Amino acid sequence: MKQLEPIVALATVPGVSAIAVIRLSGEGCFEITQKVFQGKKLALQPSHSAHFGKISTVDGLIDEVLVTVFRTPSSFTKEDSVEISCHGSPLIASKIIQALIQAGARLATPGEFTKRAFLNGRFDLTQAEAVADLIHAENEIAHQSAIHQMRGGFKRELEALRQELIHFASLVELELDFGEEDVEFAKRDDLRNMVLRLQGFIKPLIDSFQSGNVIKNGIRTVIAGKPNAGKSTLLNGLLNEERAIVSEIPGTTRDVIEDVIHLEGLAIRFIDTAGIRDSQDPIEAIGIDRTFQEMKKSALVLYLVDLSNATLDDVRQQEARLKSMEVPYLIVGNKLDLADQTLAEYFTSNQYVTICAKSKLNLEGLKTKILSLFQGLKPTHDGTLVTNLRHYQHLVETQAALDRVLNGLALKITGDFIAMDIRQSLYHLGSITGEISSEDLLDSIFSRFCIGK
Amino acid sequence: MKQLEPIVALATVPGVSAIAVIRLSGEGCFEITQKVFQGKKLALQPSHSAHFGKISTVDGLIDEVLVTVFRTPSSFTKEDSVEISCHGSPLIASKIIQALIQAGARLATPGEFTKRAFLNGRFDLTQAEAVADLIHAENEIAHQSAIHQMRGGFKRELEALRQELIHFASLVELELDFGEEDVEFAKRDDLRNMVLRLQGFIKPLIDSFQSGNVIKNGIRTVIAGKPNAGKSTLLNGLLNEERAIVSEIPGTTRDVIEDVIHLEGLAIRFIDTAGIRDSQDPIEAIGIDRTFQEMKKSALVLYLVDLSNATLDDVRQQEARLKSMEVPYLIVGNKLDLADQTLAEYFTSNQYVTICAKSKLNLEGLKTKILSLFQGLKPTHDGTLVTNLRHYQHLVETQAALDRVLNGLALKITGDFIAMDIRQSLYHLGSITGEISSEDLLDSIFSRFCIGK
Repeated sequence: MKQLEPIVALATVPGVSAIAVIRLSGEGCFEITQKVFQGKKLALQPSHSAHFGKISTVDGLIDEVLVTVFRTPSSFTKEDSVEISCHGSPLIASKIIQALIQAGARLATPGEFTKRAFLNGRFDLTQAEAVADLIHAENEIAHQSAIHQMRGGFKRELEALRQELIHFASLVELELDFGEEDVEFAKRDDLRNMVLRLQGFIKPLIDSFQSGNVIKNGIRTVIAGKPNAGKSTLLNGLLNEERAIVSEIPGTTRDVIEDVIHLEGLAIRFIDTAGIRDSQDPIEAIGIDRTFQEMKKSALVLYLVDLSNATLDDVRQQEARLKSMEVPYLIVGNKLDLADQTLAEYFTSNQYVTICAKSKLNLEGLKTKILSLFQGLKPTHDGTLVTNLRHYQHLVETQAALDRVLNGLALKITGDFIAMDIRQSLYHLGSITGEISSEDLLDSIFSRFCIGK
Repeated sequence: MKQLEPIVALATVPGVSAIAVIRLSGEGCFEITQKVFQGKKLALQPSHSAHFGKISTVDGLIDEVLVTVFRTPSSFTKEDSVEISCHGSPLIASKIIQALIQAGARLATPGEFTKRAFLNGRFDLTQAEAVADLIHAENEIAHQSAIHQMRGGFKRELEALRQELIHFASLVELELDFGEEDVEFAKRDDLRNMVLRLQGFIKPLIDSFQSGNVIKNGIRTVIAGKPNAGKSTLLNGLLNEERAIVSEIPGTTRDVIEDVIHLEGLAIRFIDTAGIRDSQDPIEAIGIDRTFQEMKKSALVLYLVDLSNATLDDVRQQEARLKSMEVPYLIVGNKLDLADQTLAEYFTSNQYVTICAKSKLNLEGLKTKILSLFQGLKPTHDGTLVTNLRHYQHLVETQAALDRVLNGLALKITGDFIAMDIRQSLYHLGSITGEISSEDLLDSIFSRFCIGK
């Protein structure tokens, strides 16, 4: 196993806690750690063993720690690695990291540990990317989807089909060597069937991207309505319930992202534009209001009507405007307790949800209605979901190249053009899993990881 | 080793990172972990060994993890313990913790792991408290002081003296058994010498508290001055430099506490009262201004004078008012580049620091001046510093009881009164290290820890 120069980074969230973990990986990391560690001789210890001792430098004792040794290739990076578990203090962690840098390690760049794991063949690129998705997963479906991808996902089937395609590519290219002889090593019917099979596999993956993206990033939602329609009260009502649930789960409170509610694994992400909560009615100021721009970009608009104050004409006007925006929307009647009779009846007959945000009346009904809009957004039966824009783009390019292959076959064009299109689809397929990759691409993927990962 | 019921908690800071660590301790924690862990049989593994595997429940796979086994008594708590290192996601961590609770563990209360370590004799109370101080230490001196205390601190010497005093107490109490017989087992001269020795040991500890407190909590500092004196510019100037330094240290950036600068291990903590940065001059509105109240509570006032605008009369008036407040203060002349000649000369002759906050001229000189005010605040030669209010209070009570013993000896009062005062000093000494403790006290101490510690 090739070992690169030793790198070090904090692997846990910085801050005050019981413990913090510092990671080292690479050639000589046992010796480097030993320079500051007073305890057993690390280079002689078996892999996966933990050892108590002290970390100190010429400036004195820094901390009492537990050092776990991982020997190549049985570590995350497959290199020799060390994990130092120290007291959870930012000062201590940075002192230890500085001491290790002094001793010869280099500070790791973001994602560098995972990049090494990938380069050493621990997993392919889709799996490495799944690690990042897994860490950032905020709801059940996103978590399951990342786990599925981390454990191989659609990669095995894709790889088998890719190998088949490579086989055809070489046969077609072999024909070219025979130039004028007009041989046909690659049976055109078999090739067509193979391409159709591959397309049949890729299409649902491409189609899953919209769901995957929503599941990963949440449904961008805007609450709109005239001033005093109760937008802020509704948002707080939805969020407060959520927060009460979340804060019962230990360790999550600090990480609640503002203004997201999770409904059966779907994240409804409320976009907090400056004006949304107290803004002038965006419908009135069509095209200029920032809220209106946000509404057009959003995946859902909750349009709140004050039933105690609006007229039927108002509502009809707003309905027409919402329709013209081509964004999914829900018209919601608020202040049901003070509702105008005619208006209430109109809402009922249109099956619009009516609530009283203040007393939290029928918020459950609203949630059910929201969920019903996004019912289709579930993973395919085997859990395969494309959540990554990069994968999606390569899949689309693959599909287009395969279309050209089919087209070429139908037109009976010469093997060299067909071979070129096959190569293009192979390039895009290989880029997904990392068989084909450039240093730039890798850098751009891994730099989105956190430091220490 | 007595093992209590199994407890579980997140031991790292919650949030998104490479890894998070979950801790379990107590009877049956291997079996509980095994219920959700698919991998080697943990109960059969040697202490301090780490094992890769999967955590899953009936609801599916949660994560791939590394589980480290610690067998009693070779763990932090001295109980059987497990550390689970999972991907650093709040969702994953809370799912695993919930699965472990489902499997029979209970969520740990704050400080419960450390409390068990204390109850099982891993360390005394001063050392347990030092663990908390260590985690929260924000500067070099506070860190060194906590490390010193964690490694025993003044406890050994104190304990030896306490044993001697117990010996005298029992001799004096033995005399009481002989009632009328007027025997004297405890030589009064020896007792007096012993008490004097103990007082000689305790006094520097009591005296170190002021320093200790400042080192631990920082020097509460207020920047005051008339509007436009440059208070905000000065603060930003001091902070920006600091932040530039801090942000070079990996893993600390998120933990910079607003408005603290560290000068040679001393924290200067700027109190951000609502009005300080842009307030009316507090000196003008004596007694009513909130800033003025803050100034009186602070350990240092930096009073900023706009040299381009103030008059000599102003400055003299402000000097007098600052003096009357009985708080250490520094008069600082700002905008030296635009200074009125007379005023500049007056500042020089009074050795007041002059700066230009905007161009950061002489901020170093200001820092040196601040440091010179607090030069005495250094640990004693052996590093002993009392930083804990509880310790300080018990030391003061001990000293008072010992004074009563000396007084009683001088007045030749009867042994029963002397014995009572000795017992009182023993009670307070024992309370410091935890030989004497109540459940309430322990709860109050450990509840200040973080969860998972």
